[in-house]
Amino acid sequence: MVMWNNMDTLTSYQELSKVGRVNLAEVMSGDNGAERVKKYSVPMAEGMVYNYAAKQVDDKVLEALAKLAEEAQLTEKFEALYNGEVINTGEKRMVLHHMTRGQLGEAVTADGGDKRAFYTGEQQKIAEFANKVHSGAIANAAGEKFTTVVQIGIGGSDLGPRAMYLALENWAKVNNTFKMEAKFISNVDPDDAAGVLATIDVAHSLFVLVSKSGTTLETLTNESFVKDALKNSGLDPAKHMVAVTSETSPLAKSDDYLAAFFMDDYIGGRFSSTSGVGGAVLSLAFGPEVFAQFLDGAAAEDKLAKNKDILANPALLDALIGVYERNVLGYPDTAVLPYSQALSRFPAHLQQLDMESNGKSVNRFGDPVNYPTGPIIFGEPGTNGQHSFYQLLHQGTDIVPLQFVGFKSNQMGRDVVIEDSTSQQKLCANVVAQIVAFACGKADENRNKNFEGGRPSSIIIGDKLTPQALGALLSHFENKVMFQGFVWNINSFDQEGVQLGKVLAKRVLAHETDGALKVYSDLFNI
Amino acid sequence: MVMWNNMDTLTSYQELSKVGRVNLAEVMSGDNGAERVKKYSVPMAEGMVYNYAAKQVDDKVLEALAKLAEEAQLTEKFEALYNGEVINTGEKRMVLHHMTRGQLGEAVTADGGDKRAFYTGEQQKIAEFANKVHSGAIANAAGEKFTTVVQIGIGGSDLGPRAMYLALENWAKVNNTFKMEAKFISNVDPDDAAGVLATIDVAHSLFVLVSKSGTTLETLTNESFVKDALKNSGLDPAKHMVAVTSETSPLAKSDDYLAAFFMDDYIGGRFSSTSGVGGAVLSLAFGPEVFAQFLDGAAAEDKLAKNKDILANPALLDALIGVYERNVLGYPDTAVLPYSQALSRFPAHLQQLDMESNGKSVNRFGDPVNYPTGPIIFGEPGTNGQHSFYQLLHQGTDIVPLQFVGFKSNQMGRDVVIEDSTSQQKLCANVVAQIVAFACGKADENRNKNFEGGRPSSIIIGDKLTPQALGALLSHFENKVMFQGFVWNINSFDQEGVQLGKVLAKRVLAHETDGALKVYSDLFNI
Repeated sequence: MVMWNNMDTLTSYQELSKVGRVNLAEVMSGDNGAERVKKYSVPMAEGMVYNYAAKQVDDKVLEALAKLAEEAQLTEKFEALYNGEVINTGEKRMVLHHMTRGQLGEAVTADGGDKRAFYTGEQQKIAEFANKVHSGAIANAAGEKFTTVVQIGIGGSDLGPRAMYLALENWAKVNNTFKMEAKFISNVDPDDAAGVLATIDVAHSLFVLVSKSGTTLETLTNESFVKDALKNSGLDPAKHMVAVTSETSPLAKSDDYLAAFFMDDYIGGRFSSTSGVGGAVLSLAFGPEVFAQFLDGAAAEDKLAKNKDILANPALLDALIGVYERNVLGYPDTAVLPYSQALSRFPAHLQQLDMESNGKSVNRFGDPVNYPTGPIIFGEPGTNGQHSFYQLLHQGTDIVPLQFVGFKSNQMGRDVVIEDSTSQQKLCANVVAQIVAFACGKADENRNKNFEGGRPSSIIIGDKLTPQALGALLSHFENKVMFQGFVWNINSFDQEGVQLGKVLAKRVLAHETDGALKVYSDLFNI
Repeated sequence: MVMWNNMDTLTSYQELSKVGRVNLAEVMSGDNGAERVKKYSVPMAEGMVYNYAAKQVDDKVLEALAKLAEEAQLTEKFEALYNGEVINTGEKRMVLHHMTRGQLGEAVTADGGDKRAFYTGEQQKIAEFANKVHSGAIANAAGEKFTTVVQIGIGGSDLGPRAMYLALENWAKVNNTFKMEAKFISNVDPDDAAGVLATIDVAHSLFVLVSKSGTTLETLTNESFVKDALKNSGLDPAKHMVAVTSETSPLAKSDDYLAAFFMDDYIGGRFSSTSGVGGAVLSLAFGPEVFAQFLDGAAAEDKLAKNKDILANPALLDALIGVYERNVLGYPDTAVLPYSQALSRFPAHLQQLDMESNGKSVNRFGDPVNYPTGPIIFGEPGTNGQHSFYQLLHQGTDIVPLQFVGFKSNQMGRDVVIEDSTSQQKLCANVVAQIVAFACGKADENRNKNFEGGRPSSIIIGDKLTPQALGALLSHFENKVMFQGFVWNINSFDQEGVQLGKVLAKRVLAHETDGALKVYSDLFNI
């Protein structure tokens, strides 16, 4: 039986805050630094490692974190989650996104069936559909193959699938699994849909409408925009659209779609990349086999998240170090910095995943918590960021913990040698250099050129960004966020904070406003 | 004669911190809230307004901010800057980016000539070149027109021009000024260049190499990558490339380029969008007239930044409110939230502009400052962000000041009516609703559905995102950042914080490493 207690009631948390602080610049220098880099490393799936040598931890801090993990029953809570307990207490729902890629524990039955069978069944339906599209068995009215797939969705139905598509687009091109180009329409700004439509050939485009509830205003509006465009081109929208939705949504049985693929209430939008929400667009773009490989990587990483030993559980360890930085060391932000252009939108996805899950002020029973919860997450790929906001990260007045990601090889295999090194070597050399520069700094008599150091970072290192590696990476961060929510005793799986804006926007559109709301509306001539 | 003093030595700053705090939820409610929205608004250029009603200020705070502006001699410092004083003291350089779009004060002579004439001369050279490319007078070896322009640059040579291109791409398409598609290569990750090359027809592509020093490693590496691709296609790279650089750089007189356009040391990369750095790619993409309109908008907004009255100087007022939030109210982050899909990369540009300029810990004399300086900047367009990180902004444990931007009309003129409103109306209704939701909140017995409010925001409202409006918007933020640097008494125009990483990366590539640096290098097999 797991106990849900606020973090500040835990003895182990009190003890953690009393452990002596680590002087990062000092411990990362010389032979000691070399030893740390070798020692403070945890294997991940797919041959990757999570290296935390440049974090402000030592064996004493790690020991205290292990006690916190134990007292807070973090792996037991994960076990309860994947065995189907109602962990999303706010909405009274189970949390089953792990089951889209594997069976971690007991069979879970709901809605009249086994949930693992339901998710794999939907994956299979998508695979068959995608294969038919690729073979031309499903084609447009002129009998021609579809060449483009356009996802219409917002938030969790957009950021994750978009980031994953961009992560694998070039990999698929060089591995001959690139089937269809994908585009994405999300914003209610009509220029988003119009802009995308201006770049595609609608006659050869298949649209994937993604909305779990079937009522997301942005998505339905953009669907209508797209349908108009199809009709104006003399095409039948019902022959160009599929839906990804829940079985109970108004879209599920509609004749407006070539096919409908289902998810359910146990998968939150931001955790849905491995469900049909990501599955449809990624299977169409790269083939169902690639999507299956992506799921395999996530499943392999999920298994590691079951380990009780924090030094064998990279997501748990990453989560605990993050809590230490947020609550004991007092850092309010975390930057995600992938040294891989393919991961250009991965930080935006993690921003949603983390901030929407853990940006909460009340615990899972609705009582206020007395400690900071989820941090601000931001980031851009390196080396681009080095020529942008890294100035502040190195010499600004605030310390920002950093989360690097890097790969030994690039995806496309093309490269160029300049000054005796390849671009890929330069890329890797830069991330290595940054870790040490942030941690150790460098004294200079000219204070303007002085680097204090003491700026913590971790790095995930992989061989190459393959579908499996991407799945493992995604799983790592999903589970990290989950574990942090457990420590903070909050419900990471609802998002009541998005409701008030929706209610007020409806009032504005209905002209039922007064006070400031009315004057602002007047400024926009609404 | 201006005096450069640290902010905490100013009497007016001490007074500012003693002014009573504003209860935002209270003052923004009811008729009082309506009055504030009408009153707390400052005209910008191009018919735009900067509205700060939902900031935690009142007349007393504004009075204290006006005194701070006066004591810190903010407009006098701006005057010194545009009249050619050496404001970038670290690098002993003048700061002349305003002069790329207008003459705000006295003529400035340097490098043997009038600087305004130099910048307009380069703009003219670019315009003539672009017109010849568009007419086909400059064409590829087969005599065919160039259809694509690819910018090769990083940091300031990438983020600004890229954000501006995306901001005007759809506008240009519907206004029949879209001349050439633009692409951008920046990252040293070889997959960036390879990925872009996989999507273009190099035979009809013109490459713009941008590096002020002519020595930026990423950019030279990517140039070499592109040259290989051109040669492999049997093309002469010198017939497909132009350079934007300084007259003293190794690129300036090279035969490797069709043409070279010049900037100089008085324009920092992050302030260079209105120089040839933005001018070449934007003039080629949209025509020189559109680029000139963009400069006109910036020039008009620059003029407002001269006003001593803070209530007639939107950039100055925005800067002062930001300092109040950062130093007195203690908020470490600011989110930039444009309700315009065209501004999708504008926050990334502002992130560089702000964090690279003001992420400093020493004053302009090299002495440490005892107060926080530049904040963390992040953001994504609305309404997308509403379905992502807004959860934390509404209900998280930290307060994040917000900077909204919105327009009454969309750029492309296409729209759809759903539930009695257009998408554009929904977009505007959402931003209006968000401001009030953040400021006023809403009490709920269920604490999980409770919104505390008290979360400050400002909004810039324009009619439509035209080239002029974009120029004004850019100028606003450039000048805001400049004024904040003046208040904090830091040098906003150098970036020593990027140097250490470069030095260490070179050592890694030369295998001159030990300690942690060596072990990390081994992990990457470098």
